[in-house]
Amino acid sequence: MAVKVFLDEKDIPRQWYNLAADLPTPLQPPLGPDGKPITPDMLAPVFPMNLIEQEVCTDRWVDIPEGILDLLYRWRPSPLYRAKYLEEVLDTPARIYYKNEGVSPPGSHKPNTAVAQAWYNKEFGIKRLVTETGAGQWGSALAFSCAILGLECKVYMVRISFDQKPFRRLMMETWGANCVASPSSETNAGRTILQEMPDTPGSLGIAISEAIEAAVSDTTGQTRYALGSVLNHVMLHQTIIGLEAKKQLEKIGEKKVDVVVGCAGGGSNFAGLSFPFVADKIAGAQIKIIPVEPTSCPTMTRAPFSYDHGDTAKMTPLLPMHSLGHGFVPPPIHAGGLRYHGMAPLVSQAIVEGLMEPLALHQVECYEAAIQWAKTEGFISAPETSHAIAAVIREAKQAKEEGKEKVILFNWSGHGLMDLTGYQAFLEGKLVDYPLPDEEMQKSIASMDGLPKPSTAKSGKW
Amino acid sequence: MAVKVFLDEKDIPRQWYNLAADLPTPLQPPLGPDGKPITPDMLAPVFPMNLIEQEVCTDRWVDIPEGILDLLYRWRPSPLYRAKYLEEVLDTPARIYYKNEGVSPPGSHKPNTAVAQAWYNKEFGIKRLVTETGAGQWGSALAFSCAILGLECKVYMVRISFDQKPFRRLMMETWGANCVASPSSETNAGRTILQEMPDTPGSLGIAISEAIEAAVSDTTGQTRYALGSVLNHVMLHQTIIGLEAKKQLEKIGEKKVDVVVGCAGGGSNFAGLSFPFVADKIAGAQIKIIPVEPTSCPTMTRAPFSYDHGDTAKMTPLLPMHSLGHGFVPPPIHAGGLRYHGMAPLVSQAIVEGLMEPLALHQVECYEAAIQWAKTEGFISAPETSHAIAAVIREAKQAKEEGKEKVILFNWSGHGLMDLTGYQAFLEGKLVDYPLPDEEMQKSIASMDGLPKPSTAKSGKW
Repeated sequence: MAVKVFLDEKDIPRQWYNLAADLPTPLQPPLGPDGKPITPDMLAPVFPMNLIEQEVCTDRWVDIPEGILDLLYRWRPSPLYRAKYLEEVLDTPARIYYKNEGVSPPGSHKPNTAVAQAWYNKEFGIKRLVTETGAGQWGSALAFSCAILGLECKVYMVRISFDQKPFRRLMMETWGANCVASPSSETNAGRTILQEMPDTPGSLGIAISEAIEAAVSDTTGQTRYALGSVLNHVMLHQTIIGLEAKKQLEKIGEKKVDVVVGCAGGGSNFAGLSFPFVADKIAGAQIKIIPVEPTSCPTMTRAPFSYDHGDTAKMTPLLPMHSLGHGFVPPPIHAGGLRYHGMAPLVSQAIVEGLMEPLALHQVECYEAAIQWAKTEGFISAPETSHAIAAVIREAKQAKEEGKEKVILFNWSGHGLMDLTGYQAFLEGKLVDYPLPDEEMQKSIASMDGLPKPSTAKSGKW
Repeated sequence: MAVKVFLDEKDIPRQWYNLAADLPTPLQPPLGPDGKPITPDMLAPVFPMNLIEQEVCTDRWVDIPEGILDLLYRWRPSPLYRAKYLEEVLDTPARIYYKNEGVSPPGSHKPNTAVAQAWYNKEFGIKRLVTETGAGQWGSALAFSCAILGLECKVYMVRISFDQKPFRRLMMETWGANCVASPSSETNAGRTILQEMPDTPGSLGIAISEAIEAAVSDTTGQTRYALGSVLNHVMLHQTIIGLEAKKQLEKIGEKKVDVVVGCAGGGSNFAGLSFPFVADKIAGAQIKIIPVEPTSCPTMTRAPFSYDHGDTAKMTPLLPMHSLGHGFVPPPIHAGGLRYHGMAPLVSQAIVEGLMEPLALHQVECYEAAIQWAKTEGFISAPETSHAIAAVIREAKQAKEEGKEKVILFNWSGHGLMDLTGYQAFLEGKLVDYPLPDEEMQKSIASMDGLPKPSTAKSGKW
């Protein structure tokens, strides 16, 4: 039995899938400070117009330009693996498949959209991209993408990660990016914060503010900002994962997927794998679709569907999403990429519709799963990815209890070779589960009271 | 044009190739302390008998047991890449191909032999393996292999690396290995050194002594030692790289390889790719075969072919090899895996025969090549691998000068994500080339004067 299913480059999907075309209830627009839908022009200083057009596009299929395929070939199509060694240990009748997104040069799914965004920016005449990064997966993906396209890249990295993860910064610098700790003295936003709190560890909210300010304040007009998750065009670019998986499953004669799993912080790797299967579900297929989040940051399982800002400093438009409030600070779990207060509008709307069954897990269970994975499948997983693995193990055990031959598919979104300190804490018995910060959470959720509310209407089919 | 050539698992090579069967002048035996060829029994406390038999085997083809194939499927067959993005930038008529050995769970070619050795040990009833590691590539490969086979693993890691590379150690521990700094207080060899030099940074020689002592002193007989390079059975296991490459080149219609390149420390990744092509050369094909070493440790380009010990403490038998002397301490270049005083006997004998054209390079040129690689092909290379890349760039430029459509194949032996400090030094302008330590080298070479000399007879055909 084959463990890996390859797909030749000539068989790579040539269109992205856009869930916005098929949602039973339409996606609701982002709103400006005045509560009115924002216009493309308002975003023009931040993003290039070709990406803004893609952000509002409702076509079901969007052609992938040849230029982007040529960038993706460096690591795509990614292999589909069967987790047969884990299956054996679990003694499950389930067949478990996963996309190995760790084969990309930066080691995660992030470059799927990073190369696309960099390419569209270059097409639009942009010479320089600015972004923020927390743990560093997104920053290194954009640094890589700018390197191979010959663009300049600037990354504002949350100070605590900048200090704790020097190798992540070195990765970005190896690809030629300029990486500074945020808050920095380079922007008004950074200087203001530094004056008030000189010893702040920084936050993603502050780093976003600095990156947007740096992008829009370049008077040459040759700089733009790039975001690694949440937005519609990011989800779109990631759907190549699920579209490849479908072709690979077809190649080996798997006709039906029963369960699709992905971890979800902003939603991009989960959306990338699952959206093509959400389309099947909308068309009538029976599929359980599970986005997995940390119990410490329970956006999908505990937060309301509301309009909220994407960043702490309220520089972004209001987006319709499940949100814990833009001021929410989750406990310091190791899966930094899942510590985000909101969730992609496309994922949120699908949850409202009832198309998904979100699951929240504590980190100790996830690290236990990651260790079992390392000792069976062999690969060391990113802390974010471990959430998907833990959910898959639950599903595989349930299949055993039920005696059902289920097909489970998940996204192995990246390796954890740059993020081993969580494993260290686990192995030394120091890893803990944080109690849910209920009081702060309720307070943060209440802070959205004055913001507009999106419709929660749904088709009622699911 | 396809960038990657995959090979289905069903097409994986099912036999290893043994160069010992085809060398025009036969491989010379290892010698014991008395100067006489050692017998298998003498090695029995160190290695299991099935591997000792393989070490002296002269069959051309050796079947790969199904149990080992099942371990290899976790990442093999590895993709063959065409470096078309680098070709474009170099504007060369050469077609450059490389095997991507970075796709293995530990990120290098080392597990090709680690899983095989662990499997043979388990077959022989061994429960526990002991080894040493310098920079950590080998130790993590063995830790991974023992994890998936359920064996215990103990790694003596050179103290300076243990302190400087905590993430490498964490990798091994994630796979369940016990990793201690060497010299340790756990062995007589370690205690003796610590008493004399309590602050020693350690060395590979000391770590080998500790690992062998720990293996042979286990009175239960259930512990053995494992070595990651130099020995014949290690070279044998690695030939799957070159054998896969041949099938992949055939698949895309490449009929003739002109140049084969690999970096060489102990010789295993170079041998793995090149030996099947050395066979072609012996049979009459015109192929330039280039092992690349650091100028700071010029085993192949400057050292005599002599009998010498594999370790500083003279615990190993005498091996016929190009050696700078077992006491040689190379300058502290970043490519730790290439800082070895000797060279695999099979590679050495092929060099004596004239089948190879060794090249020595300084590290600054190699890091320049690695940066160009990262900005074209995208992947960040191990410092060792950068030596192969630099040699390939030289060959590609020469092909351009000559206007020749050469086919160049090399082994991209591993990624550098755990070894970024060399990149940091390079990017900060602090990386230097060390002058060749001529005096120490001559002294170290002279220290072998009293040792037996192998025959330097050759067939005279090359």
